[in-house]
Amino acid sequence: MEKNKTIITIGRQLGSGGRTIGKKLAERLGIAYYDRELINLASEESGICGEFFEKADEKTSGGLLKAFAMGFSMNSAIFQNNDYLSNESLFQIQSDVIRKVAASGSCVLVGRCADYILRDEPHCLNVFITAKMSDRIQRVLEYNNKLKESEAEEFIHKADKSRSSYYNYYTDKVWGAADSYDLCVNSSYCGIDATVDYILSFVSLD
Amino acid sequence: MEKNKTIITIGRQLGSGGRTIGKKLAERLGIAYYDRELINLASEESGICGEFFEKADEKTSGGLLKAFAMGFSMNSAIFQNNDYLSNESLFQIQSDVIRKVAASGSCVLVGRCADYILRDEPHCLNVFITAKMSDRIQRVLEYNNKLKESEAEEFIHKADKSRSSYYNYYTDKVWGAADSYDLCVNSSYCGIDATVDYILSFVSLD
Repeated sequence: MEKNKTIITIGRQLGSGGRTIGKKLAERLGIAYYDRELINLASEESGICGEFFEKADEKTSGGLLKAFAMGFSMNSAIFQNNDYLSNESLFQIQSDVIRKVAASGSCVLVGRCADYILRDEPHCLNVFITAKMSDRIQRVLEYNNKLKESEAEEFIHKADKSRSSYYNYYTDKVWGAADSYDLCVNSSYCGIDATVDYILSFVSLD
Repeated sequence: MEKNKTIITIGRQLGSGGRTIGKKLAERLGIAYYDRELINLASEESGICGEFFEKADEKTSGGLLKAFAMGFSMNSAIFQNNDYLSNESLFQIQSDVIRKVAASGSCVLVGRCADYILRDEPHCLNVFITAKMSDRIQRVLEYNNKLKESEAEEFIHKADKSRSSYYNYYTDKVWGAADSYDLCVNSSYCGIDATVDYILSFVSLD
């Protein structure tokens, strides 16, 4: 068991600030950070184009159909080394990448069922970030100020459904259930920076 | 807004150590602790015998039928001041007691939807405690060493179902969902005492 290794996985509600918290945690600890970076790695690892992983990211619906909808033909690069490419296959490729980066050293991993994929990894702290709805809406509007508040809320509900379907399909746990994580924090309670400090103090308990 | 007031509500999985954590938090903060004490207070407040609250405690099924099953007659003390006594009525009486003790000063309140009942209370920290199943079974066996491990696990699953039905019925939130609380901690991650320290450091963030 490597005592100096720290792996933190972050599950998060859309607009909870979970991604920012993950980044800041990695910066403060001086360790690697992986969120969408996992897509590039999975693409490099498999030779499958990143756009394909992008479109299937944290979704359960069929990869093959999605590929056709995206205008890929059976001759295109993504099928060159695959007879049949389902979202399950993409999940397996991404899982291998997650296990590989976790084996190579300390890191923060956001989303993509990393907590489940790394369930046998020692010193893995699994965190889930929530926030009150008004803060989540505000954060979504910061990224897209063309949306109305009601549209931002609808977008949030859809994202929650999509993330929970993905997580509940690929793991034996329930997305967003306290029971599925070591620590769940409402970032609205004390703000992003205090939440980062707080998670860091939990890391040091291990 | 009273800045020096601290209200902590604790939701907990059976066998998670949530009750012990609540007691230790109250001791460390030098504030009042309410768990089953709420039953006595509700009984004193209403004149309804404590045994009746006890049997209906954190359950949703009908109070009246339960009362008959317990051998009470319509002439018995519990009905003296009530034409019809449902679990909803008992919940209302207990809710009034919870609001009263929270209004009177700092305290730790365990279970009984206190987080929802006190949703308008400022400086209220809502905590949920989980633990891994093997630790929960161990704790149940400490209280009742006549049970087999499989029976303890069945007992735990039934208690989870009962508590979640009660909470989901009386609140607009979901029992054990990270989203329903400010902070959820897996007590198996660092043990009871470190969890207490950790929650205390969260209290100081407010």
